[in-house]
Amino acid sequence: MERQKIKNILLNGETGKQVLVKGWVRTKRGSKNVNFIALNDGSTIHNLQIVADVNNFDDEILREINTGASLSVMGKLEESAGSGQKVELIAETIELLGKADPEKFPIQPKKHSLEFLRENAHLRFRTNTFGAVFRVRHAMAFAIHKYFNEKGFYYLHTPIVTASDAEGAGQMFRVSTLDAKNPPLTDKGSVDYSQDFFGRPTNLTVSGQLEGELGATALGEIYTFGPTFRAENSNTTRHLAEFWMIEPEMAFYDLKDNMDLAEEFLKSLIKYALENCMDDLQFLGNRLKEEEKNKPQDQRSMDLIEKLEFVLNNDFVRITYTEAIEILKNSKPYKKKKFQFPVDWGVDLQSEHERYLVEKHFKCPVILTDYPKEIKAFYMKQNADGKTVGAMDVLFPQIGEIIGGSQREESLEKLEARMKEMNIPAEEMWWYLDTRRFGSVIHSGFGLGFERFIQFVTGMGNIRDVIAFPRTPKNAEF
Amino acid sequence: MERQKIKNILLNGETGKQVLVKGWVRTKRGSKNVNFIALNDGSTIHNLQIVADVNNFDDEILREINTGASLSVMGKLEESAGSGQKVELIAETIELLGKADPEKFPIQPKKHSLEFLRENAHLRFRTNTFGAVFRVRHAMAFAIHKYFNEKGFYYLHTPIVTASDAEGAGQMFRVSTLDAKNPPLTDKGSVDYSQDFFGRPTNLTVSGQLEGELGATALGEIYTFGPTFRAENSNTTRHLAEFWMIEPEMAFYDLKDNMDLAEEFLKSLIKYALENCMDDLQFLGNRLKEEEKNKPQDQRSMDLIEKLEFVLNNDFVRITYTEAIEILKNSKPYKKKKFQFPVDWGVDLQSEHERYLVEKHFKCPVILTDYPKEIKAFYMKQNADGKTVGAMDVLFPQIGEIIGGSQREESLEKLEARMKEMNIPAEEMWWYLDTRRFGSVIHSGFGLGFERFIQFVTGMGNIRDVIAFPRTPKNAEF
Repeated sequence: MERQKIKNILLNGETGKQVLVKGWVRTKRGSKNVNFIALNDGSTIHNLQIVADVNNFDDEILREINTGASLSVMGKLEESAGSGQKVELIAETIELLGKADPEKFPIQPKKHSLEFLRENAHLRFRTNTFGAVFRVRHAMAFAIHKYFNEKGFYYLHTPIVTASDAEGAGQMFRVSTLDAKNPPLTDKGSVDYSQDFFGRPTNLTVSGQLEGELGATALGEIYTFGPTFRAENSNTTRHLAEFWMIEPEMAFYDLKDNMDLAEEFLKSLIKYALENCMDDLQFLGNRLKEEEKNKPQDQRSMDLIEKLEFVLNNDFVRITYTEAIEILKNSKPYKKKKFQFPVDWGVDLQSEHERYLVEKHFKCPVILTDYPKEIKAFYMKQNADGKTVGAMDVLFPQIGEIIGGSQREESLEKLEARMKEMNIPAEEMWWYLDTRRFGSVIHSGFGLGFERFIQFVTGMGNIRDVIAFPRTPKNAEF
Repeated sequence: MERQKIKNILLNGETGKQVLVKGWVRTKRGSKNVNFIALNDGSTIHNLQIVADVNNFDDEILREINTGASLSVMGKLEESAGSGQKVELIAETIELLGKADPEKFPIQPKKHSLEFLRENAHLRFRTNTFGAVFRVRHAMAFAIHKYFNEKGFYYLHTPIVTASDAEGAGQMFRVSTLDAKNPPLTDKGSVDYSQDFFGRPTNLTVSGQLEGELGATALGEIYTFGPTFRAENSNTTRHLAEFWMIEPEMAFYDLKDNMDLAEEFLKSLIKYALENCMDDLQFLGNRLKEEEKNKPQDQRSMDLIEKLEFVLNNDFVRITYTEAIEILKNSKPYKKKKFQFPVDWGVDLQSEHERYLVEKHFKCPVILTDYPKEIKAFYMKQNADGKTVGAMDVLFPQIGEIIGGSQREESLEKLEARMKEMNIPAEEMWWYLDTRRFGSVIHSGFGLGFERFIQFVTGMGNIRDVIAFPRTPKNAEF
């Protein structure tokens, strides 16, 4: 008899039908005569209720049916009165596959803190919260590939180990096979990287964008979806040393095309989540409400599903950085000196400013464009005003910047001039500059931090809770 | 007017219709009165023929329309007589977007060696061969996600930076932020990794399997698809230091379920390629024929598309390692001492043996099972004979081993005993062993090297030609 997944049984199970299920015990409760076992197999947030007449089974087996134990159960489906489900399973045979000693199994049927579950990240997949988070994460990854595939974008695997550090997006991790204690030295006494595996210093990538541009200026539209790294000592709820990023890069797209794509893309993902993950989202929404129930009303989050529907159903506001500065300077918090950081043309906006624009002023996702060139990267399209560049950041409620992108400078002369101003060595970037040297085209792209987006969709407050095994300063467990 | 992709024009273009296209010039030829420009935008292997009446355009523009230049062309579609396409574009306006100096642009319309194109990997996307390879690679990546999503598997991102090196699958790259020349030392004089970013020695992962098992024993069925690394000094056509691997891991699957999945999975990918990439595959098939035309008949490859159809339409043969040894010992090459490596029960099979079984004996993909435990990893299911383990390797023509997998040992006692025999420190693997300690279940999984599979599908002989920017000893360019 073939095993059926609990998701399918709960959706399509017919009473009277015999089925075989396998999974892990979430809870067991019972009376003198009957045991009710909630069984979960990971296919859904919902458990299947197993009803076991204690007279039909060995005491020894029933004693071992504890939270965390694995079972194989055969029986008939019956209409369920009490379990909240359409059907329950009347057990005919129960096989105990693996025990879970209740004195030792960490994931007991009680409220565990997220911190505790982080320390037990190898087992937290077995909880409702993390089951839901990782099913939603899967669905969003799939929706990303589906969206781009349908639009004719090609998935490009850009390199993880790189000798290029010119983008300057952040501190990097060194990758090496040299002796860690006594590396070979050159005559001049510096580390002799010519003896290293790659014959030169190499690091973990901070972005696949520059290589992505190489693909886009030949294949048309590409996207990356891979791990990126920052060796920054940031112990916050928003930072990881290892995270996944999606970076589309498109030939023949100007800044407006880029904004249109970003907005359509984000909405398509949210639509997919609402259409495919409602059970998990409802659970996560309730979890968030429960978590915030002791907060004052005005500090509580918007209902998770309402928030997603709101983003889906409203146009993103599009304004320039310069307009944003005006709005901020005319705002109540500015006038009342409530902002911690300065608001002057030329400064980088802080999270408090971004959240004011999105949550208070526009009450809507906002795309800010045309930032001062001094606070943006060398490759961004230089505007005619000589002061700004064709950057675009998409700002979301609660998260702040969720997408950063720009039109790319396609003029070799302007790009080289800007690199010189910023002391970026052109000779190391010969391959990048070749795209402007030969058949250069207008092109654009952006980056979406996958984990920040998953935080937004799941309502999880700490980024360590939306990636399976978080890598952060002093932590590389599992 | 909105740009149309050349793929769509060639599929659905109606004569008489006005269209706007943008792309890169592949070739230009012409007579006194007319120029024929082959334009490619990456959306397809095929070029759109642009017909430019020289009397309608400035000499200066026409002079700059060289291979590699980028153009924006508007005009009317007309039925094409000569170009081999249904339609061609009669140019009304031509805008030169970016020049490409024919003295400097490396990718000229002539035969370039694959070695030369590897040195120009930043521009090789602009050739027919690499356009085709990377479109097929994209299609296969998408087909992988589609297949698993439809089967209810969850995509799990296992960590890239890892403190675990217990699997022993190969030499590893060290990841560190310590001073490379003068690392801090402990009192005892060894490198003080407690001061390193993660507070301990860390490396780039060789496999996501162990973490994958954590996901599978909670979510049911998961798969990974991410980069993996080997710091081995292997300069061959089959090895990369950085490559992408797909590793499904499934609770409640025994070895037979595992084999069934592997076979169905590979066939579904090949079916997807045949249904979605025929233009590119035909080009690649012809390329391969051309490349091998000077080889003796018996050393030439099977026709690419015939080969894919053959794998799709035939059951894989399934035999044990022990049976394979018997077959090899009774084979002509063995008796004539043509094998370079020994054939004795207990040795690891070499490529020559695998290819004999697949290409000469069975003429069919083969799944070998139940290998001697001494040549396989500690986590494999120990068979009742005490000598073999529930491993399975899928062997393909030309490639040899394309998938390696096994049922995993689910018994804590047996697993611990085997780890002790193999000197694998159980205390570092506490999290892995917890899956056997709490609710252990029968489970299985396998790994598919993505690039080797792409080699098989595209017929490319060198693995460096199926990944965008190959990482190999002494090479981390771009």
